[in-house]
Amino acid sequence: MRISIYRWGHFNAAHRLHNDHWSDEKNKEVFGKCNNPNFHGHNYEMEVRLTGELDPETGYLFDLSELKRIMKSEVEDRYDHKNLNLECSEFKDKNPSAELICYEIYKILRNVIDKKYDIGVKLWETPRNYVMYPAEH
Amino acid sequence: MRISIYRWGHFNAAHRLHNDHWSDEKNKEVFGKCNNPNFHGHNYEMEVRLTGELDPETGYLFDLSELKRIMKSEVEDRYDHKNLNLECSEFKDKNPSAELICYEIYKILRNVIDKKYDIGVKLWETPRNYVMYPAEH
Amino acid sequence: MRISIYRWGHFNAAHRLHNDHWSDEKNKEVFGKCNNPNFHGHNYEMEVRLTGELDPETGYLFDLSELKRIMKSEVEDRYDHKNLNLECSEFKDKNPSAELICYEIYKILRNVIDKKYDIGVKLWETPRNYVMYPAEH
Amino acid sequence: MRISIYRWGHFNAAHRLHNDHWSDEKNKEVFGKCNNPNFHGHNYEMEVRLTGELDPETGYLFDLSELKRIMKSEVEDRYDHKNLNLECSEFKDKNPSAELICYEIYKILRNVIDKKYDIGVKLWETPRNYVMYPAEH
Amino acid sequence: MRISIYRWGHFNAAHRLHNDHWSDEKNKEVFGKCNNPNFHGHNYEMEVRLTGELDPETGYLFDLSELKRIMKSEVEDRYDHKNLNLECSEFKDKNPSAELICYEIYKILRNVIDKKYDIGVKLWETPRNYVMYPAEH
Amino acid sequence: MRISIYRWGHFNAAHRLHNDHWSDEKNKEVFGKCNNPNFHGHNYEMEVRLTGELDPETGYLFDLSELKRIMKSEVEDRYDHKNLNLECSEFKDKNPSAELICYEIYKILRNVIDKKYDIGVKLWETPRNYVMYPAEH
Repeated sequence: MRISIYRWGHFNAAHRLHNDHWSDEKNKEVFGKCNNPNFHGHNYEMEVRLTGELDPETGYLFDLSELKRIMKSEVEDRYDHKNLNLECSEFKDKNPSAELICYEIYKILRNVIDKKYDIGVKLWETPRNYVMYPAEH
Repeated sequence: MRISIYRWGHFNAAHRLHNDHWSDEKNKEVFGKCNNPNFHGHNYEMEVRLTGELDPETGYLFDLSELKRIMKSEVEDRYDHKNLNLECSEFKDKNPSAELICYEIYKILRNVIDKKYDIGVKLWETPRNYVMYPAEH
Repeated sequence: MRISIYRWGHFNAAHRLHNDHWSDEKNKEVFGKCNNPNFHGHNYEMEVRLTGELDPETGYLFDLSELKRIMKSEVEDRYDHKNLNLECSEFKDKNPSAELICYEIYKILRNVIDKKYDIGVKLWETPRNYVMYPAEH
Repeated sequence: MRISIYRWGHFNAAHRLHNDHWSDEKNKEVFGKCNNPNFHGHNYEMEVRLTGELDPETGYLFDLSELKRIMKSEVEDRYDHKNLNLECSEFKDKNPSAELICYEIYKILRNVIDKKYDIGVKLWETPRNYVMYPAEH
Repeated sequence: MRISIYRWGHFNAAHRLHNDHWSDEKNKEVFGKCNNPNFHGHNYEMEVRLTGELDPETGYLFDLSELKRIMKSEVEDRYDHKNLNLECSEFKDKNPSAELICYEIYKILRNVIDKKYDIGVKLWETPRNYVMYPAEH
Repeated sequence: MRISIYRWGHFNAAHRLHNDHWSDEKNKEVFGKCNNPNFHGHNYEMEVRLTGELDPETGYLFDLSELKRIMKSEVEDRYDHKNLNLECSEFKDKNPSAELICYEIYKILRNVIDKKYDIGVKLWETPRNYVMYPAEH
C-alpha cells in the first residue's frame, strides 16, 4: 500500500541572481531587480514529500518527527539567515534561483533518506510563485 | 476531455497512537506524546479529488453540491467530534494515524462514488503536515 | 533536468450556469442557485504550471516576470471585472463552469507559450473548491 | 470578564458600482471597471465579532452554533448567489460597495442579536482588501 | 513610541465541554456534540500580542526569540498533546471552552512577562472561529 | 459614519540587525543570526488601514486603486528588492527591525495621505510574526 506524506519547513535568506560570464548590462537586462549587487531576500517555504510503502505496525510511512529533525539539521540550519551567494558553496558557480535551490534541497535529502522512499520538493520563493523538483508530469 | 475537481471538508476528532502488541515502553518510544493514553486531537482538513470525463451538457465533471453532501454524510458525520480509537470500528485493530484515516476515507468514498471517476484524498492533520492516498507518483 | 514552476493570478467576474436547450425547470433543478438569471460572481484564483528543461545559463525554467505579463495580458485582462456569459464569446454556447473556464485558460496559454513547455492550470472558484486541466492522473 | 468571539461566513454575489445622479462619463471615471453595466462578482468572506460578558456556567460568550445559524439565515441566505444591485432592496438607492455591504450586515445583525453584546463586522471583497464597521479606532 | 508585536504558536489537544452541576440531558442540549464523553480535539493556534515602548538601542519591542521560548515552555509544553479536562488542573472545575483556554493563556503569560508590556491573546479553535482576551472594544 | 478599510502590499528585501555602538560580541549575543554581516532577507507583507468618514456619493471611504498606487509608488518601489541597510538612508543610523520598518512606512504614508484619515500599518516579517504601528491598545 503506497502512500505519500508531506511536511513543511522554512528558512529566510538573502540572494542575488547573476551570471559571471555575462556583462553587467546583460545581467541587468535578464535578471532585472533580482540582479541588485547588494542582495535582497525571501522567506522560503518548502514542502517535502516522501512516497513509499506504509509500515503496518505503526500506520506510518515515515516518522514525521524524524523527518522534521532531518529537514532542520540538513536544510534549515544550512540556509536559514544566510547569504546564499556568499556563504553556500553550492552556489559559488551557479545562480541561487528558486529552481536551483529546490534542486539542491532535493539532492541533500536524497543523500540522507533511504532509497526506498521517493522524494519530491516544492519551494516557495514568495506566496505567489514556487517550483517543484522532480517535475510534475 | 478528462479533468479533475477538488473539494474541501473538515472534521475535529480525538485520537491516540498505540500498538496493542507492543510494550508500553516501546509504544512510548515510537509514538512519543502521540501515545498519551488520555488522547489528544486535531482539526482534520480533507481535500477530495475526482477525475473523469467532463459532461458536455452541464460543463460539470460532477455536481459539487452532491459531492459536498456525500462528504458530509459519509465522512464528516462519521468522524466529526468523535474519538477515533473508541468510537470508530475501523480503528479497533489499527492506528488512527493520518495515513490510515486518509485510506479509510478513500475506501468510504470509493464505495459510494461511481467507478468511472478516479478518486484521490489528501488529509491534513495539522497545517504543517498532510498525507495523500493513492500515492503521488 | 526537468523541473516545474508555478505562478498565481486572479480575476473577479460574474457568471451564470444555464443550458439553453433545457427548460427553465430543468435548469433550476440541475444548477440550483447558480442558475440565477441576474448572475452571481466569484474571485477566481488561478495557478499556472510550466514544466520543461532548466536553462543552465540563468538557472530559470522560464522568466517569471514574462509569465506574469502573459497571464495578465492574455487571461486577467480578458476576464477581470467581466460578465463571462455576456462579454466573452467563448461562453456564448457553453457554460462558464469552473471546469470550462479552466480549459479556456489552458487553451489561451497553450497558444502563446512555446510547445517545449508542458502547461497545467488550476482554477479556484471559491477557497473550498477548484478544478485542474489537464486532469491529475 | 469581557471577552470577544469571532466567526467566519461567506457568500458569492454579483454587483456593479454606479451613481444614478452622475453621467456615464463620471461613473466610468470614478468607478473604472467596477462600473461595468453587465456586473462582475466576488467571493465575500465576513468575520463577525461579538463582545460581552462570559457566561460562567457554560464558559461561552455566545453559542457559536447559534451564531452560525443566525449568520446563515440572516446574511448568507440573503446575499449568496444574488445580484446585489437588482435583487437586494437596500442597494436600490445606494452602491453595493464593500463599505456599504459591511454596514448593512452590521445593521441586520444588530437587529437580531441581544444589545448586551457589542458587534463588529469585517468584510473581505478580495483576499487583498477588506473593510470594517464600526471603524477600528 | 508605543508599538505592538505579535507572535504565533500552536498546540493540539483533546477536550470535552461539560458542566458537572447539570443533568446529562441539559449537557447534551447545551453543548451538543462537544459534550461527547469520549472527547474530541483541535489544532489550537494562538497569537500573542505585546504592546509597549520600543527600545531605541535594538529597535525591538521585545526579543522575539525570547517570546517564542516563553510561549513554548509556559503554554505549548503545558497543553500540547494533552487532554485538557483530565490532565490540566485549571480545567478541573471549569470548561475548557476556547474562551477559558484563552483566558488561562493570558494569565500564564501575564505572570511571567514584565508588567510594562500590555498583553493580548487570540486563540483559534478551528480555522473558522476564534476568541480574544482582553476583549476587543 | 466612520469606517475602516484595509489593503495588502508586499516587498522582498535584505537586511541585517546591528548596533554600531556595540562590540561584535554584544551584537552577536543580542541579535544572534540576524546579525550575519552578509545579510539575510524576508518577504515583507504589509496591511495598511485607513479610518475616516464614508463618502455618501461613492460609498467609498477612499478609492482603493488610488491607495494601491500610493502604496506601490511610495513604499513598494522604495523597499522592494533592496538592501535596507545599504540602500535606504532612513536605516543608516538605526536598525531595520520589523518595528522600525513599520514605523517608517507609517511616516511615509502619513506624509502623503490627507490628515482626515487615521492610518495604521501592520508589517509581517515572516508568516509567524508581525508588528503594528500605532500600537493596538
